[in-house]
This record gives sequence, structure tokens and C-alpha cells, in this order.
Amino acid sequence: MDTPSAKSLMDDVAAILSADLRGTAIRDLDTPVPLVDVEIAERNIVRWQAQCDRLGVANRPHMKTHKQPLFARRQIAAGAIGMTCQKLGEAESMVAAGVTDIFITYNIVGASKLARLAALAQKATVSTVADSEAVVAGLAAAFADAEKPLTVLVECDTGGNRCGVQRPEAAVSLARMIDRSPGLHFGGWMTYPPPGARLASDRFFEQANALAGDAGLVVERISSGGTPDMWSTLGLERVTEYRAGTYVYNDRSRVEKGICRIEDCAITVLATIVSRPTPDRAIIDAGTKSLTSDLIGLNGYGSIIGIPGATIPRADEEHGYVQFVEPRDDLPVGTQLRILPNHACVISNLFDEVCLVKGETVLGMTPITSRGRVR
Amino acid sequence: MDTPSAKSLMDDVAAILSADLRGTAIRDLDTPVPLVDVEIAERNIVRWQAQCDRLGVANRPHMKTHKQPLFARRQIAAGAIGMTCQKLGEAESMVAAGVTDIFITYNIVGASKLARLAALAQKATVSTVADSEAVVAGLAAAFADAEKPLTVLVECDTGGNRCGVQRPEAAVSLARMIDRSPGLHFGGWMTYPPPGARLASDRFFEQANALAGDAGLVVERISSGGTPDMWSTLGLERVTEYRAGTYVYNDRSRVEKGICRIEDCAITVLATIVSRPTPDRAIIDAGTKSLTSDLIGLNGYGSIIGIPGATIPRADEEHGYVQFVEPRDDLPVGTQLRILPNHACVISNLFDEVCLVKGETVLGMTPITSRGRVR
Repeated sequence: MDTPSAKSLMDDVAAILSADLRGTAIRDLDTPVPLVDVEIAERNIVRWQAQCDRLGVANRPHMKTHKQPLFARRQIAAGAIGMTCQKLGEAESMVAAGVTDIFITYNIVGASKLARLAALAQKATVSTVADSEAVVAGLAAAFADAEKPLTVLVECDTGGNRCGVQRPEAAVSLARMIDRSPGLHFGGWMTYPPPGARLASDRFFEQANALAGDAGLVVERISSGGTPDMWSTLGLERVTEYRAGTYVYNDRSRVEKGICRIEDCAITVLATIVSRPTPDRAIIDAGTKSLTSDLIGLNGYGSIIGIPGATIPRADEEHGYVQFVEPRDDLPVGTQLRILPNHACVISNLFDEVCLVKGETVLGMTPITSRGRVR
Repeated sequence: MDTPSAKSLMDDVAAILSADLRGTAIRDLDTPVPLVDVEIAERNIVRWQAQCDRLGVANRPHMKTHKQPLFARRQIAAGAIGMTCQKLGEAESMVAAGVTDIFITYNIVGASKLARLAALAQKATVSTVADSEAVVAGLAAAFADAEKPLTVLVECDTGGNRCGVQRPEAAVSLARMIDRSPGLHFGGWMTYPPPGARLASDRFFEQANALAGDAGLVVERISSGGTPDMWSTLGLERVTEYRAGTYVYNDRSRVEKGICRIEDCAITVLATIVSRPTPDRAIIDAGTKSLTSDLIGLNGYGSIIGIPGATIPRADEEHGYVQFVEPRDDLPVGTQLRILPNHACVISNLFDEVCLVKGETVLGMTPITSRGRVR
């Protein structure tokens, strides 16, 4: 493992953890609790940074997966140019934690949020997006008297059918509006392409770039993202920065899609069997409030590590239903299970804290400071 | 509306709210934010209490829907005998808020939780459940030297296929074990029957009662629950207390099942249109982090109040996809939408605060103090 700096997550971890769990074994932890293995996360951070460096693409990780300063700081120390946030509240929490360069990939709408955005832009380098004249007009009004202009990228729908202008012509039209607005600076294009759509994105940007050139606009950044295709180099030639989130933890969804191995998954949810009503069924203390209802195309609410064939076909808020392939009398009430969650990011939005571990060693709890920052 | 006490939620609300939102209009609220109409909640609380009084069934509401003292205190003031909690952490937060009688309907397992349970039982009247010898043994060890014995009900699986002993014989066997344990007191039977299974529950209890009588055991409480069947009087003769949660807020699931009317729904999620990428699609700032992924058999992630035919067929973490039945140019970026969520309880587990309203008047924000208490 070629570490780009002498520091690693372990150095940072030592500084932030409270002492109350030192010496605790995983089996003594109260459950349900999310565990994050810092050595695996460190490896994931370094490996992806090395790939970005090889490709000459700036790495701007999405903080939505970990939602906390520890991992954001480490991603930046390893070479990331700044963080991506979806919501303004997340950006505020990242800046409060010392992150100095933030890209908010979300239309900021409404007087209250625009005032907060203007205040935030005085504390850090902030860029954002727009996909309509209404959004640009709001940003322009909020930054009309700002000392430094706000960099705004045009969000382009290159197949995701979510936000974004629909055509390169519309992208350039909006770019011109941004360019004409005194408080704003046109920063380039941003997209969130669906899996497998990188070439379509590239065609969109090729056309948009040509039109922008005709209009005398400079396209400084082309920001793409998405975890499923992150290791593919296809259609990346024009992309200047990449936003990936899940790679820091990885999850069952990525394992099942063949994007990573189980050993690359840093996050698991530790649960306890609280009931054995029948020989082939166990009930665990992790339901949808610990695992979410996100199935994202998978069967069941997570996979159980080390118990072949066991599934979690059903979950209530506080109960997970574990189905064994045959009667099991070796897993009594009190047995702990480690669950690989379907979707890492949503786990970080359920718990106030995560327990950091290194292999089987408990390091301590750390708060998920940006949890619930939906506004 | 015949109020059982002169007090109502409005009296309590005035005392707890911070002043910073007084005079704010709903249209000025920052979104996404859950709104709870206290007049509707008050009506729901009073109506269900009156039904319990008519039937002579003790009302022990489940706090999982609101997760905060304001509504718990009002339910008790209106006549509830105490609260139901699923998790120990929820029970601790309710006792800290002044609730004096708590039923924890969950197997408490492990040294750490058993110690917390023993500590909690010194501060309030606490009862709990068990469905295995392992759970009873843990409780018995933790309360062996307790001043007052812990009341333990036997959880019975009467068709829900979740936790619970499978047969009346097993229920009585466990009841005897509880009865023999010095620190424990046998309290009766508890079940969470699936919808439509009340007669099956009643048959289970009839048999269990007969066997308990033969064994010289007194069955003080038979605790049933569940919101879908709460208005049915079928098979309730033996039931002494009822645990219902969702009725305080109600939700889209209950409306679609015909259990309540839209006007009975106290909770909505206020969201803002942030993008209009196409004439028939809008993107709102409420995704699964505001509405959850809980579909519970419904189509879409909630229903939009006042916009006939509009659906939310898809949601990412921060984006809700709104589909209109025809092009809409009257709903620009910045338009607020009120969404009736599929499932009220899970909304309270996402947000740190809820905004109380009375019709169109904003009263203020109040913390969801038991959010995330999964341990």
C-alpha cells in the first residue's frame, strides 16, 4: 500500500476518541451499533486517491457516506481537493470541522438557505450548481454584493432523469446567464450519470463545450460522479473532477455488483439475537431503524457475515427476521451477528455515533456530526 | 369532542416552544421539515382514549410514533396508564421526561442493558417481556437483589411470526419460571397480533389462561397491540390493555386502508420543488432521508396533498421525483408541497426536530428527544 502521506486514519483516530471504550471487546459492545474498520477505510481512501492521481482527475469525495470530519480530513490529507455535499447543512458542518473547499451539488432555493450560503461562502471556498434560471436568479440576488463571486456549475441531465438541464443548448444558455450575473462565476458542468452512461455524458459535454467555446465561455471544471462506474476509465477524458462517496466504506450492494470484495467493506452493523422463536428463525435487535428499508434491488435487508445461507427477508422497525437454511441450535439468544448493510450511506443517517474498530479491536465511538442535516 | 381533562396539547405546547419561529408562516419555513398539527393530534388522542374507556381497556400508547415527551405527557393526561417503548433507550428518555410507568415490549439481553434496566426500574414502574428461558434467566440475575421485583409478561406469538413463544404450553412454562424467580413477578401475556388475527390471539390466551389457572398463576395483564385493528372490538374480551402508536399522527398507509381520513392525519412533510427538469416532472428536496424507503405495500414514497394524480414514484437520498399526470407550468422552482408520508413512525426517526403547527399557523420547533435511541 503506497500511502501518499505519512499520516493515516489511525493517527487521527487516536486523537479524537474518548477513552471510555478502550479495552472493550466487540462482544461487549451494546447493540445495534455500526462498526467501521479504520484500516479498511484507510485502504479504500488511499486506493481511490491513487487511481484519481493516475488518471489526472481531481478527487472530490462525497461526504454523505461517512458524514463526519475524521474521514473527510483524511480524504483531503490523502490528496482530495475538497468535499462534495448534497445539502447546505452538511456543508456547514464540514466547514465547521475545518474543510476549506466545498462543492454543494444541489440547487439552493429560498431566502433562508441563500442567506446561509452567502454566510458560508465567506468562511470557505464554496461552489454550487444550478439547472434553471430560477435557481441562478436566486444565487445572483444573494451574491450581488458579495466580495468574491460564487462559482456556479450547470447541472446537466446526461441520462439520470433527476435534476439537470436536458440539452447542451440549455446548459450553455444557463452558463451565459451565470456569466452575466455580477456576483456569480461560471464554473463548468456537473452531472450525476446513471451507471453505464459515461459515454452519453461525454457526448453531452463535447457538444456543450463546443457551444460554450462559441459563446466565449471558459469551462473550467467538468464534475462527474457515481460510485458504480468509478473504476471505469471510459468517457472520462473531458472530466476534471470525480465525486464518489460509498467507496470509503463500501457495502453489500457493491459486493454483489462485483465492484469490491467483502474484505473491502469497512462498515458492518453489529446486532444481537434477542429471540429464537423457532429452530430456523432468529430475531435480531436491528430492524429498519438500524438497517433502513433500502433494498436497492437486493434480496433482504443485509447479509450476515459468516453464516452461509442465512438471510434477512423481513424487518420491522426494531426487529430483523433472520432465516436459516436449516435448524440452528448453535446460535442462542445473546449471539452477536455482524451484518453487511445493503447501502452504507443510509446507515450513517440513522445512528448518532459509529464505533471505530481495527480488526477485532474496539477503538471507540465517534459522532456522525452531519447526520440528519437535511436542510 | 368530549375532552377528558381541561388541558389540551395547546396548553403544553405554549410552554415548551422556543420563540424564534413565532409569527413565521408555513411558506417561510426551511424545508424539508415534518409538520405536526397539534389540533389534529389532540383530537386523535382524545378519540382513542374515549374508545378505550368505553371498552374498559387500559390505554398504553406506543411512543415510537412521536418519540417525544410533549405527546406522551398529553396521552397520559388524557387517560393513558403509561407508555409502551420498544427499546430501553426510549424508555430511559421517557422516564427522564417524567413518565412514571413504562412497558418495554422487547427482550432485554446482555449485561449492559440489564444493568441499565435495573437502574431504570428504581426510577419508575417498569415492566417488560420475555419469550425464552435465556431472557428470563438474564432478567432474574439482574433483579435477584432488587428491592421491588420486575414485572415480566410472556410474549406470545399469536400469528405474527416475529418474537414470542409458539404455544400456550410454552407460555405457561415460561410464566412458571418467572414466578419462581425471586426478583421477578409474572405479569401476564403480551402479543403483537398481525392484522385480522385477534380471534386467534384470543384462542391462544384462552388456552394459556386455563393452563395458568391449573398452575396457580394469576394472569394480571393481557396486553395486545397494533394499529390496523385498533377500532375493532373483535376478540378483545380477554385483553386488559392495548398498545397503539400510529393513531396519534396517522399516515397515508392508514388512509389507504380506510382506518382514518386525510383530515385525521397530523403529520405531513413540507418540501420544496428545487428543479423542474421537464414539464411533467419536478424534483423536491425530500428523498429517502426525509420520507424513508418504507413503501409498506403502497405505490410511491408518499402522497402529495392538493395535487391530484401527482405521485412520487422514485426517491434518492436527497431527491424526491414527482410525476404529474400532465405538464404543469403552475408549479415552479420554489413551490412548497406538503406530503402525507407512507408511515408516520419512521419519519420521527429521521429528523431531530418537528415543527408544530395549528392549521396554517406555525407554533415552533420541538426536539424529537427519543430519535435514534435504538439501544
